Amino acid sequence: VPSVNRLPKHLKLLTLARDLRRRKARDRAHLFVCEGVRAVEELSGSGLSIEGALTSPDLDSHPRAAALAETLRTAGIEVQPVSDREFESASDTETPQGILAIGRTPSRSIGEIPAESGKSLRLLILDAIQEPGNVGALLRTAAALEVTATLAMPGTVDLWNAKVVRSAVGSLFRHLCFASTWDELDSFRSEHGVTIWGADVRGDVLERNGRPPERLALVVGNEGQGLSDAARTRAERLVSLSIAPDVESLNVAVAAGILLYELRR
Amino acid sequence: VPSVNRLPKHLKLLTLARDLRRRKARDRAHLFVCEGVRAVEELSGSGLSIEGALTSPDLDSHPRAAALAETLRTAGIEVQPVSDREFESASDTETPQGILAIGRTPSRSIGEIPAESGKSLRLLILDAIQEPGNVGALLRTAAALEVTATLAMPGTVDLWNAKVVRSAVGSLFRHLCFASTWDELDSFRSEHGVTIWGADVRGDVLERNGRPPERLALVVGNEGQGLSDAARTRAERLVSLSIAPDVESLNVAVAAGILLYELRR
Repeated sequence: VPSVNRLPKHLKLLTLARDLRRRKARDRAHLFVCEGVRAVEELSGSGLSIEGALTSPDLDSHPRAAALAETLRTAGIEVQPVSDREFESASDTETPQGILAIGRTPSRSIGEIPAESGKSLRLLILDAIQEPGNVGALLRTAAALEVTATLAMPGTVDLWNAKVVRSAVGSLFRHLCFASTWDELDSFRSEHGVTIWGADVRGDVLERNGRPPERLALVVGNEGQGLSDAARTRAERLVSLSIAPDVESLNVAVAAGILLYELRR
Repeated sequence: VPSVNRLPKHLKLLTLARDLRRRKARDRAHLFVCEGVRAVEELSGSGLSIEGALTSPDLDSHPRAAALAETLRTAGIEVQPVSDREFESASDTETPQGILAIGRTPSRSIGEIPAESGKSLRLLILDAIQEPGNVGALLRTAAALEVTATLAMPGTVDLWNAKVVRSAVGSLFRHLCFASTWDELDSFRSEHGVTIWGADVRGDVLERNGRPPERLALVVGNEGQGLSDAARTRAERLVSLSIAPDVESLNVAVAAGILLYELRR
């Protein structure tokens, strides 16, 4: 974002944070916005690089936020106080907590998946999941249930969207997750022998105490549309959970949580 | 909302819908707003009474919405077209789908829980859950996993909040769920013999294939604070799920989903 460099110093971070609300700007700059006390605490402890932070006068009513700003300053990170109005112009939350950090997106790729033969493997594949809160909850679930990696397929909301960052509560910073493509997954699969299962309400009801494949990728589909054709043609099996007949489906993060728990190694 | 009656006819429903964004107005009028094509379809098929509906010019770009408006009209329900701007003033979503209905809140109480002795029972207790999206996902999960009833304890967001209505995707209309109190639960428990378990990250890791009590109430706590003292003093056991050591917790709806699935009768 070169034009930012010509701005007065105290506006640089603010302008950058505002700009990063657009996916294109995030992709180009390899930066993202992380908002709220808990998320910035997680970011600060994650080892990811922080480019700077903004604080608003609201900071004073959040003791943990003030302590956090001090921690960042001590670590040599620029912390820029701005007015409430300026802060809100960069903020994505309805109730800002007075602190927002700009983090550097880690470069991650499918080659980083620990896939030595003989080792068991669990992948979660997000097939056009569109609700940022769902994607955040899915990443948090994958990290908690020790999924090896999560791949965000085309049509899925950007993993570095501010709402995803917030709802992932830190898991985004540590769990191996990244945007990928079906071609990339195909290559990985043929090299490393991974079975693909798709979650689908019309699939086989998952048996309890079954013996799932050692190396398994579970695909979960779009909130309204379900699995894409790309997922359906690749899935060797469609699985579902037994639910009440008058209920159409579970929330995608809840369904993935139950399936991943049941399929855990 | 008596003042509404003095308004010109075409503004009555609009003013009412705007008013119903406040919990007090919903409590007083026993009405709620249901927004979006899918949610209004679910409402229309649920048997709950619909007081009226608003449509915006957006309706024309959603074929299902236009058909739905026609269905409502055929059923004798007043459907009032308003401008985009008027619609947005009553709407709670960022991308309105051109239809919004005003539904009548069903009167439900703890006495309706089918609790004949000998029968197994599953209750879900929401202990100050504050995020409407989480409450919606919890209700959807409870309905799908055949929980007998869900009780929203003090501190929990209003079940008839527009965001809860939307994220519950119809389950709110059919699943037996209502606001309650700890005193009410205590009376019910002493009369019907129900065991209370609390979900807590420091609780016993839930055994697989265990034999949970036949009549069980599972309490899930606030997103940030966990279980309240009221819940802790009542819980006979705290249970948790085995998760990765570097992850603090699961999303509350995901955790409840896995626990309820494991504890299913």
